[in-house]
Amino acid sequence: MPMKLDMPYDASSIEGTNDLRLDFTKLAKLPEGSLVIPVAVQNAITQEVILIAYTNQLAFEESIRQRKAIFWSTSRNKLWFKGEESGHTFTLHAIYVNCEQNSLVYQVTPDKGNICHTSIDNVPNNCFYRALDLDKLTLSMK
Amino acid sequence: MPMKLDMPYDASSIEGTNDLRLDFTKLAKLPEGSLVIPVAVQNAITQEVILIAYTNQLAFEESIRQRKAIFWSTSRNKLWFKGEESGHTFTLHAIYVNCEQNSLVYQVTPDKGNICHTSIDNVPNNCFYRALDLDKLTLSMK
Repeated sequence: MPMKLDMPYDASSIEGTNDLRLDFTKLAKLPEGSLVIPVAVQNAITQEVILIAYTNQLAFEESIRQRKAIFWSTSRNKLWFKGEESGHTFTLHAIYVNCEQNSLVYQVTPDKGNICHTSIDNVPNNCFYRALDLDKLTLSMK
Repeated sequence: MPMKLDMPYDASSIEGTNDLRLDFTKLAKLPEGSLVIPVAVQNAITQEVILIAYTNQLAFEESIRQRKAIFWSTSRNKLWFKGEESGHTFTLHAIYVNCEQNSLVYQVTPDKGNICHTSIDNVPNNCFYRALDLDKLTLSMK
């Protein structure tokens, strides 16, 4: 099964490409002892999974306090108020907790319509805008 | 905002409790250099998020090859064929890839109906069977 996994990571091309270039290094790059857990962020209306983000104790409390989608940026190592700059924030409606209390689902709604910084023909996308062809192992837009 | 986060981890009580006891240590416990990424596993029919699991290159290829939900168990450090022992396997229908190619959504259907090892009144649950009261910060069954 030929997969292009050993190519150098380049976010700009990775976002636009239809080549499968999974980056399995994300969690290995976390600062040692990072106390973060993953959050599947789901559109409360359409039920689409918008993105998977990370939260820690601080971001979790802040998200609940403000009732907004606020995460912990593992790359910038600080609070990540989603949409703070673009205005494309999300209202937090519900949080679900898994069996082992080490992953979360946030149900949210976009406040202004936009979701991800990627878009196709100016139509806003969620982050999972590419489907993998399970036979050819290439990506295509949803 | 009082949260019970410093209590000792005990899976059996964590699964049954309505106390919020988030375990933020999951990823910090990964073996150094673990090349895994999170997968939001979504029921292709109901759109519910069933669980968040982890995959690596091997598990990813195996899941595609068998068209079943197969993950990498980060605690047991081996392939995790979900439902292999119980028979409650999942058929893999679609995979979606995020912008940065470092998280995945698997759309699946349960082959036999059961989903999680937890159940309420013998009704099968997904793993996110508890909602957090955003005011009281306590959990309750969905």
